[in-house]
Amino acid sequence: MKVNGKHFRTIWLEKGRIKIIDQRNLPHEFIIEELKTVQDVFNAIKEMHVRGAPLIGATAAYGMYLGVLENAIEESAKKLVSARPTAVDLEWAVKEQLKEMKKGNSLEEKKEIALKNAGKIADESAEQCKMIGEHGVKLIKEISEKKKGETVNILTHCNAGWLACVDFGTATAPIYEAQKQGIKVHVWVDETRPRNQGSRLTAWELIQEKIPHTVIVDNVGGHLMQHQKVDLVIVGTDRTTYTGDVANKIGTYLKALAAKDNDIPFYVALPSSSIDWEMKDGIKEIPIEQREEKEVKYARGFLDGKIKEVLLTPKDSPTANYAFDVTPRRLITGLITEKGVCKANEKNLMELFPEKVVK
Amino acid sequence: MKVNGKHFRTIWLEKGRIKIIDQRNLPHEFIIEELKTVQDVFNAIKEMHVRGAPLIGATAAYGMYLGVLENAIEESAKKLVSARPTAVDLEWAVKEQLKEMKKGNSLEEKKEIALKNAGKIADESAEQCKMIGEHGVKLIKEISEKKKGETVNILTHCNAGWLACVDFGTATAPIYEAQKQGIKVHVWVDETRPRNQGSRLTAWELIQEKIPHTVIVDNVGGHLMQHQKVDLVIVGTDRTTYTGDVANKIGTYLKALAAKDNDIPFYVALPSSSIDWEMKDGIKEIPIEQREEKEVKYARGFLDGKIKEVLLTPKDSPTANYAFDVTPRRLITGLITEKGVCKANEKNLMELFPEKVVK
Repeated sequence: MKVNGKHFRTIWLEKGRIKIIDQRNLPHEFIIEELKTVQDVFNAIKEMHVRGAPLIGATAAYGMYLGVLENAIEESAKKLVSARPTAVDLEWAVKEQLKEMKKGNSLEEKKEIALKNAGKIADESAEQCKMIGEHGVKLIKEISEKKKGETVNILTHCNAGWLACVDFGTATAPIYEAQKQGIKVHVWVDETRPRNQGSRLTAWELIQEKIPHTVIVDNVGGHLMQHQKVDLVIVGTDRTTYTGDVANKIGTYLKALAAKDNDIPFYVALPSSSIDWEMKDGIKEIPIEQREEKEVKYARGFLDGKIKEVLLTPKDSPTANYAFDVTPRRLITGLITEKGVCKANEKNLMELFPEKVVK
Repeated sequence: MKVNGKHFRTIWLEKGRIKIIDQRNLPHEFIIEELKTVQDVFNAIKEMHVRGAPLIGATAAYGMYLGVLENAIEESAKKLVSARPTAVDLEWAVKEQLKEMKKGNSLEEKKEIALKNAGKIADESAEQCKMIGEHGVKLIKEISEKKKGETVNILTHCNAGWLACVDFGTATAPIYEAQKQGIKVHVWVDETRPRNQGSRLTAWELIQEKIPHTVIVDNVGGHLMQHQKVDLVIVGTDRTTYTGDVANKIGTYLKALAAKDNDIPFYVALPSSSIDWEMKDGIKEIPIEQREEKEVKYARGFLDGKIKEVLLTPKDSPTANYAFDVTPRRLITGLITEKGVCKANEKNLMELFPEKVVK
């Protein structure tokens, strides 16, 4: 998607070097970073220079290429997978790389395979997001027609935009496609404390693409839904069980409850790499990352030309920082995947992805 | 309650002068302010030097006393009532003062009546909160007994503590009483964006009273409830209809939905001054204040020994700032009032307050 009118992906090769956008200082500073070592990739994932399940996957795939260069394939795989626990794409991408590399006989061959396959994973991710957009836009179009062309109000939580992917985004792909097709849309952007991926990243993306939007604090969505100000909710996911339970950024579950209570369709957009074909019960089984207290105690923003952190709480108050929650399938209207829209249940997911074997 | 071990109320007379705690810079700075004019009182309410429905009421009552001093009773009444739209205690306290002052024949007599009655309103508010504590503690005790003395985990949203009242608090009164009775409690404190009354004020109160607590972002409560980490939710209210619908700080509705979804008792603590005996449908009728965009775009906190604001969003992103939402009575387990605990419905409220006439 565009940054100041120029097309960017979130991760790319430039003269053989791996480049990413360091997303931590957006929207205030646009910084491009080079990842030179497996340690760089590990840090970039763990410290969230890159984030979002599909992008974490693509970044880890490039990390595995660096792992071959460092002649440390197994160690790199273990290290990268340990960077963050919730997004299943991380594990998936590393496994894909290990599987492909087995086809190489020498380190040189493995290197070539890893680089080529990382590119393929990134390209496929972009392509999948594009397809998610094409399938998802039909839902928006339908509402637009029901509203006789009036603006469709879409609420989203966190950033499941192109910054969370390689390009296009998951939750945002149908929105970008709607805009392209001339459908009037407006996006309610949850700020998404504690790391404010909504107010920082989603809002920034939407400005770049000239999509009307309004930033709200995470507390507001329920009120908006009660007052018919939301037509549709679309979010992303870090891991979806084959039964349709959805782990996503903390607070998603609360919005799903409000959508259900007000009969508003609640959709989750995801590439199939975010589906965990081995996990049945999302609430019991999906590991939920707990991050450092600092993210809750402080707010990070822009002041006097610099990124600064201000203390919000009494300095001695303990905090807890759960990064994700799980929305049970009963609250989800449907899943928007690269292969089409389906209900959030085992039967419908299996019909859409028959090649996947469920244990 | 205590500040560094010394007892304070949130509003008091000192040698004939009206003093308040300016709550805007807490927990970082403790500032006492004198209110000298009706304009001072109007500003203090509007700009939230004082906040919380019962305290807004008591402050407005003292404002009416200043109104007599300025020989501008009617104008002061109008001005004060217009300061904030949602908390019904504001209107209630001003009406009480107008009613009482009618008993005075001269301005001098009205002045005496207004001062005396403001003191009475403040004292009664403190007393009501104390009674709320005594009634509400039974709910906590019951859970503690069921858990065989294990810690009772209580979630609260915003600040319905003594800082929102004259003393004791509404939602916190049962918690303070529980601590006094030796019942083990732990409080999950919602930070409550955008003004962070939870992380700033509730957390500070709990530290002062040595009550174990953990600050969380507003997104977390649902996840905690899904995982049996919350035994009870208690919140305050700015206006409760006689039918039991509850307006409270934005985001309360989302927590009520999560409590219902997980079979966790959800209580609202309130003095009867917060009940609107003329309003039937909370969602349709209660006016919801919209505050300035700045509160959403910026976070306010402490840095280098000063209060500072950092920009969170892109500078051009619009924001919306709804300050309250309404929780429908069907989601509320019960109301904790100064006269006892009752169900959130017309019949039970009327039985508890038979002297009130419903239109």
